[in-house]
Amino acid sequence: MIEEITSITNPLIKMAASLKQKKYRSELGLFVIEGIRFAEEAVTSGWETEYCLYTKDAAQHDRVKRVLSALRERNCRQHQVSHSVYERISDTEHPQGILVIIKKKWHDLSELLVSGQEPFFIVLDRVQDPGNVGTMIRTADAAGCSGVILTDGCADLFSGKVLRSSMGSVFHLPIIDAVKMDFVRSFFVEHNISVLVTCLDTPLFHWDVAMTGPLAIVFGNEGSGVSQEWLAVADKKAKIPIYGKAESLNVASATAIFLYEAARQRRSCL
Amino acid sequence: MIEEITSITNPLIKMAASLKQKKYRSELGLFVIEGIRFAEEAVTSGWETEYCLYTKDAAQHDRVKRVLSALRERNCRQHQVSHSVYERISDTEHPQGILVIIKKKWHDLSELLVSGQEPFFIVLDRVQDPGNVGTMIRTADAAGCSGVILTDGCADLFSGKVLRSSMGSVFHLPIIDAVKMDFVRSFFVEHNISVLVTCLDTPLFHWDVAMTGPLAIVFGNEGSGVSQEWLAVADKKAKIPIYGKAESLNVASATAIFLYEAARQRRSCL
Repeated sequence: MIEEITSITNPLIKMAASLKQKKYRSELGLFVIEGIRFAEEAVTSGWETEYCLYTKDAAQHDRVKRVLSALRERNCRQHQVSHSVYERISDTEHPQGILVIIKKKWHDLSELLVSGQEPFFIVLDRVQDPGNVGTMIRTADAAGCSGVILTDGCADLFSGKVLRSSMGSVFHLPIIDAVKMDFVRSFFVEHNISVLVTCLDTPLFHWDVAMTGPLAIVFGNEGSGVSQEWLAVADKKAKIPIYGKAESLNVASATAIFLYEAARQRRSCL
Repeated sequence: MIEEITSITNPLIKMAASLKQKKYRSELGLFVIEGIRFAEEAVTSGWETEYCLYTKDAAQHDRVKRVLSALRERNCRQHQVSHSVYERISDTEHPQGILVIIKKKWHDLSELLVSGQEPFFIVLDRVQDPGNVGTMIRTADAAGCSGVILTDGCADLFSGKVLRSSMGSVFHLPIIDAVKMDFVRSFFVEHNISVLVTCLDTPLFHWDVAMTGPLAIVFGNEGSGVSQEWLAVADKKAKIPIYGKAESLNVASATAIFLYEAARQRRSCL
């Protein structure tokens, strides 16, 4: 018979619950992913899976059984927990009864070039809504980007909302997190990567600008747009035309529009 | 001195608070918008503004004073309420202390043609996430669509989350709400409006499909995509290519990509 953790004062449970907060995710170097689909992604991702916590009910399902078995092979410690304990740790509205605690992996800027693919990055400059950050990562993955760069001041990459909105894409391409703008800029200069800044201060529409070759597209904060620092070093600028009465587009929608115009232009090499 | 409503058992306050629920929005034919920016949109929108509730603190701001004065001219009844009463009614995380109760307006399909603009619509087929619905409306507005059609089973157009995500675009273009698919289909046939269905069951990419002329683009449910009924009557089908490991795109991102490819193709007439 499997022993079940039933106390919320259990140190592992307290640690797991603390990972809802960025402070403790940083201190411990760990984060949580939830649900069966995400757990399956974790298994194939190559990230280090430290602990898996699941409820008795969840463990009845074949998909969960398979994931638990695969995680065991990867030396991931597993514990059955009571429903009340699971609810204490879970950060989702409709918990599926399985979560995995994963060790953060730090990507270095140089890793962005490892794939040998022509550089095609997006830079998130102080994008604050976690749903936007996650969706932008998902779209970058779909559009064939070779990496995503989050500069200081973005929503925390390892928050539940960012991870959920990314639909697993955080595991699919290298993401550089919380990096200083200066480092990124030097890296781009060094590798002849052209910087396209999305802003309103230009007459050019996105479809008028060449997006082939080594390219990084910079997207700014929801309220204030791209920062002066990035505007000052832009090789190109472009905006999306607005035909109706909307003042602006959602930044994740703007990302989708830019990335697929880039993909359209680059499609012979993708 | 202005009299302030301080009791949450006040019938107007109970009515206002009930509008958080779809059931009562339907029964009363009213909905709530919050915040100064949205209140300003309401003033210029041409929708009937029934009540405005605000806190004493909010009323100190010049923008709020101007809005209150403009609403008064439109015969909108105004009441100052205490902070605790305002919190009871508010549906936002950071309330700005001003909300307006607006009478629902029913658009008819025929109104979609009133502008004289070449028909360019989006159809939302059981899109369930309120954030997605609102963002899709905002993008349709920006891309110059002449209307938005929500068929049965979409998130409620008048929920706080849809309204907030639309950033006011609900007031900018005609939106047909909760209409049956059959009616929409007949309307399209009658007016020679071509139906482009977004789905995976096609070899064609969005940029390979002609999107000029009278056009409606159909987007489906987040999990299951476009329904069989729409697939069966599609004049054209198209999908967005996926280059990375993402399984799919967010439906609001897909909408942005389709609408701006359409805008690119239609740009001589927009």
